Amino acid sequence: MKPKPIEWQGETLILLDQRALPLREEYLHCRHSREVREAISVLAVRGAPAIGVAAAYGMVLLFDELSGKSPVAHAEYAQAAEYLVAARPTAVNLQWAVAKMLDVYRDLPHRDVAEDRNLLVRAAQGIERDDQNLNERIGTYGASLFDTPQRVLTHCNAGALATAGIGTALGVVRKMQEAGHLAHVYMDETRPLLQGSRLTAYEMCREGIPCTLICDNMAATVMAQQRVDVVIVGADRIALNGDTANKIGTYGLAILAKYHQIPFYIAAPSTTFDFTLQQGSDIIIEERAPEEVRQIGTQAIAPPDVAVYNPAFDVTPGELVTGIITEEGVLYPPFYDNILEFKKKVNS
Amino acid sequence: MKPKPIEWQGETLILLDQRALPLREEYLHCRHSREVREAISVLAVRGAPAIGVAAAYGMVLLFDELSGKSPVAHAEYAQAAEYLVAARPTAVNLQWAVAKMLDVYRDLPHRDVAEDRNLLVRAAQGIERDDQNLNERIGTYGASLFDTPQRVLTHCNAGALATAGIGTALGVVRKMQEAGHLAHVYMDETRPLLQGSRLTAYEMCREGIPCTLICDNMAATVMAQQRVDVVIVGADRIALNGDTANKIGTYGLAILAKYHQIPFYIAAPSTTFDFTLQQGSDIIIEERAPEEVRQIGTQAIAPPDVAVYNPAFDVTPGELVTGIITEEGVLYPPFYDNILEFKKKVNS
Repeated sequence: MKPKPIEWQGETLILLDQRALPLREEYLHCRHSREVREAISVLAVRGAPAIGVAAAYGMVLLFDELSGKSPVAHAEYAQAAEYLVAARPTAVNLQWAVAKMLDVYRDLPHRDVAEDRNLLVRAAQGIERDDQNLNERIGTYGASLFDTPQRVLTHCNAGALATAGIGTALGVVRKMQEAGHLAHVYMDETRPLLQGSRLTAYEMCREGIPCTLICDNMAATVMAQQRVDVVIVGADRIALNGDTANKIGTYGLAILAKYHQIPFYIAAPSTTFDFTLQQGSDIIIEERAPEEVRQIGTQAIAPPDVAVYNPAFDVTPGELVTGIITEEGVLYPPFYDNILEFKKKVNS
Repeated sequence: MKPKPIEWQGETLILLDQRALPLREEYLHCRHSREVREAISVLAVRGAPAIGVAAAYGMVLLFDELSGKSPVAHAEYAQAAEYLVAARPTAVNLQWAVAKMLDVYRDLPHRDVAEDRNLLVRAAQGIERDDQNLNERIGTYGASLFDTPQRVLTHCNAGALATAGIGTALGVVRKMQEAGHLAHVYMDETRPLLQGSRLTAYEMCREGIPCTLICDNMAATVMAQQRVDVVIVGADRIALNGDTANKIGTYGLAILAKYHQIPFYIAAPSTTFDFTLQQGSDIIIEERAPEEVRQIGTQAIAPPDVAVYNPAFDVTPGELVTGIITEEGVLYPPFYDNILEFKKKVNS
């Protein structure tokens, strides 16, 4: 059974604390938008689509904090929301979801706080439901690419834990499994925060999907040994030319796939595209604390004073990407033209 | 000051237990060859040249165990030595050092056990001293490749902790530093056993060499950001065509260096060459326990039942190698011809 990372319970947003996985299933009970921001910031909830859904409910909690007897001014709401957006600078879904909630708020009747709140909750639930549907459609389009059992390599966690549904990259994997076209899943452990070994391995083992865990630096060898037919990963932000920000390590993996002539697919919904960005070099890359590299959990694994470089994401140039699997089908090069077409379709 | 991983004290081989680094400097006191084998097997001592030196002293301890009043038969000594050789299958220096000690033993006077033992100790000390000299010469040849300050990326630990001297790859780094041609060292942490973060970072920090630790999957990004001028790594076994077995992750790094047009050097003494091997595909690759990937230290980081693939080494094809820095100079392609020439030189 797939795990449920996000659950709205009327007054409280319940988040599966992914930092404790796979050893313990602990839940955070967020009753204040500040707690949602903190959960996003520390990666208790993570994955671009899941962050978007959590932020949407966070906007409901924020509304509760601002509203008294009278409706809240839109400008006040928007300003207060900025601190939610700042929790993670790279994932575009976060700012997308907050902007969406602000748009919804602008068009509310503003007669009654309770009525406004209900409509905001409905909007957040719509974002959650939409993400579930997007996952299903991405999975179906992705699985349709293959008509024989494939050995998939994936990086980080673009699964149920990263979304409101079956996942993006792992949504494709699940639909391949349903179709009998999945032979095996290789999972990069994904240092420093080990989303592969902690989260993807947890999801795959839970569902009995045949899988093998490797360290990130073993991917080249697994490819050279012809154990992998296709690489499928998620995304945090995609520019108009197909350049894709995703978890650190994705770019190197794309180079290795190219060298071994293995197709390299991104699986992501339209909400992950940043249609305002011409290219990946414009994407802000979040740098995280050196302790994530110097320690694992609370265990020190390096000299305490050693300098560390810890970018959380990298940018894979569109030229290394075989195709981008979206809810509207698979986009192929030339990406610039085809992503502009895609933009028209999803904005219409 | 560089650390001292191996010290012979007449009856005891003292090994710095590298598993406890960088947090604690603990020493193993080996009085039996079985303890030396165990130290090699669990990676308390590691690095191809250091394993060779430890094994040479282990052969002295083995001699002590076998010899009574009368000299030991060569065949008996050779057979008993096999269990030392089996401790790590990939590092060629291990079998090289054991074979060398057996050769020395064959030519001993065999009049008196004490005399034979003295000559064996001298032979082991000779292997240790030779390795120190090889390191110096490799370092000098390597440093002579550069006449401006370079930013070096290295993988695993091919340093003082991996040898009897200043190291191979890090020997080059140290000589570059002396020559004023070292700008910075980037160090891959090198999962699963973290020789980069634990050992290379320890060596570099100790000596105040400017350095930055990264996770293995960040190397591609560091290269794309033009932070690296050259990659220098060690080796565990080199075939006649230049194919090189080294710590897992080296092969992927070589592909990334090629993609970014960054020179990729191996630094290794002649003892690391296996002149009986035509190509790297003939090299036995040691697979190690899944717990190394599922855990860090004693801390579980993955589902306890997840399948793991854990090759300790990979093979980098000679075509990805810019040059091999040896004690006799730098070897360039075509490797097959030039390594055959090199073989003649070192065997003469």
